[in-house]
Amino acid sequence: MRVVETFEATRALSEGRTGLVPTMGFLHEGHLSLIEAARDANETVVVSVFVNPLQFGEPDDLASYPRDLDRDVSLAAEAGADVVFAPDESYMYPVRPKTSVSVAGVANDMEGAHRPGHFDGVATVVAKLLSGVQPNAAYFGRKDAQQLAVIATLVDDLSLPVHIVGLPIVRESDGLALSSRNVRLSPAERARALVLSRSLFEAAGSFEAGESKAGALTGAVRAAIAASGDIEPEYVELARARDAAIVDEAVEGEYFLAVAARVGATRLIDNITLDADHGSADRGIHLTGPSMLYEEG
Amino acid sequence: MRVVETFEATRALSEGRTGLVPTMGFLHEGHLSLIEAARDANETVVVSVFVNPLQFGEPDDLASYPRDLDRDVSLAAEAGADVVFAPDESYMYPVRPKTSVSVAGVANDMEGAHRPGHFDGVATVVAKLLSGVQPNAAYFGRKDAQQLAVIATLVDDLSLPVHIVGLPIVRESDGLALSSRNVRLSPAERARALVLSRSLFEAAGSFEAGESKAGALTGAVRAAIAASGDIEPEYVELARARDAAIVDEAVEGEYFLAVAARVGATRLIDNITLDADHGSADRGIHLTGPSMLYEEG
Repeated sequence: MRVVETFEATRALSEGRTGLVPTMGFLHEGHLSLIEAARDANETVVVSVFVNPLQFGEPDDLASYPRDLDRDVSLAAEAGADVVFAPDESYMYPVRPKTSVSVAGVANDMEGAHRPGHFDGVATVVAKLLSGVQPNAAYFGRKDAQQLAVIATLVDDLSLPVHIVGLPIVRESDGLALSSRNVRLSPAERARALVLSRSLFEAAGSFEAGESKAGALTGAVRAAIAASGDIEPEYVELARARDAAIVDEAVEGEYFLAVAARVGATRLIDNITLDADHGSADRGIHLTGPSMLYEEG
Repeated sequence: MRVVETFEATRALSEGRTGLVPTMGFLHEGHLSLIEAARDANETVVVSVFVNPLQFGEPDDLASYPRDLDRDVSLAAEAGADVVFAPDESYMYPVRPKTSVSVAGVANDMEGAHRPGHFDGVATVVAKLLSGVQPNAAYFGRKDAQQLAVIATLVDDLSLPVHIVGLPIVRESDGLALSSRNVRLSPAERARALVLSRSLFEAAGSFEAGESKAGALTGAVRAAIAASGDIEPEYVELARARDAAIVDEAVEGEYFLAVAARVGATRLIDNITLDADHGSADRGIHLTGPSMLYEEG
């Protein structure tokens, strides 16, 4: 496996069908499931590792975002990557970029409303990564369900010849969705954070039992979170998977039921995918033991 | 030569190094000079013909924009194109696109100030054409000098692996810059429009004689236009070629001295490139007889 710092070097190492897994590093089993899926379907697998400052609204969140490139490189290699593209910020943004990519509508609510400018930063860096690497397919986790809708819309609208693949959330055995930010949680916060996934699973059960109304589903999540104590969700919404439009009812196709909340100083998001055609919910993949996020470095 | 309506078909016909000449059709010798330059440097030459509604602010301007695809196809073929990509609007924009690409700063003044939204429309369609066709090089005329700066900035910022080539303005023998919109001018308007290029040439002469101050150069243009009668310029500015920043003096590198004005109902733009390193002005290429815009259809 090779570690490179430029798009030119990345393209030069890309032979045949190329799959890109864009990450901000500090990899966990969620990222590894993307790399493995890319490995199965492509001749070349590129993992990008870049903490994109454009998508951070809060300087503290950017500064404290966990980073460990050596760890990422060895995990990516084990999972089957051929190339790790780990550019410097001065390469990605030699000057503050004048160009920004915005996706209207899809990016307005939920994360868009609570993190102003976030999705412009995401759309701009993803457009740059897809333009610079020119992969045939790119792989994203469904934990960022709204981000996935933003990226799919961007790719359609700009006619980027890349197939966007969204893959299930990977969770700790107790349900907590994997996130690089989880390492910032204290043990007590880690325990309190569990209510997010537990409340979504309760709603998933009621969806599978026939409840399709947003009010009932989001109400169940809110009630479970309120019952647990001191976590105040930023939002709980039912949205269409394709375009992140908030809906009143899950009637046809795919939806996600999403929640965001701060646990201590750490902002967490989670969601479950609801398939209205089959009345089924995708609770993601549960690990059988603690994730690698808790391994000693 | 092949005429196709999809990006997939365009890419399938692109062998080896590919040059793209993006146009809105109704080709003239200016476009043909771009196609010929692309022919000299590439194995495949693609000419796109698409009147992009996103970049028109005025419905009348869009509706009256001249179109003749049969004429464009035969002219493109004669000039050496391999592929004409002439998509339907319903292919380019099956739904109103949610994604928009903006280039801050470069796009703010001059055309940006007088045609709100214009450059967002240009940047979005050019990003889409470059993403969909994936050329190695793309060719643009310097008549749209600010557009060229917008596109070069976009390509840098989004790391699009394409070389942007800007080529000299082609003019009628009497100096009028070629524009598809010229066909809308009455004979009397056609005669009045000449003051735009004539005033720029006067300023070019004073630049070559040592005048580098914006005030003197734009003042010379304004005075010549005012002396000629009833044309009121929308703007006259000296701007840096690289980023279209309006400057007070041409001190180092390339600049353009630009003018926009309505002649009757038709809005025209023109400019000359000033090379401050050599003290020289590029007045463009003058045809020896009437351009093909005046040929009977």
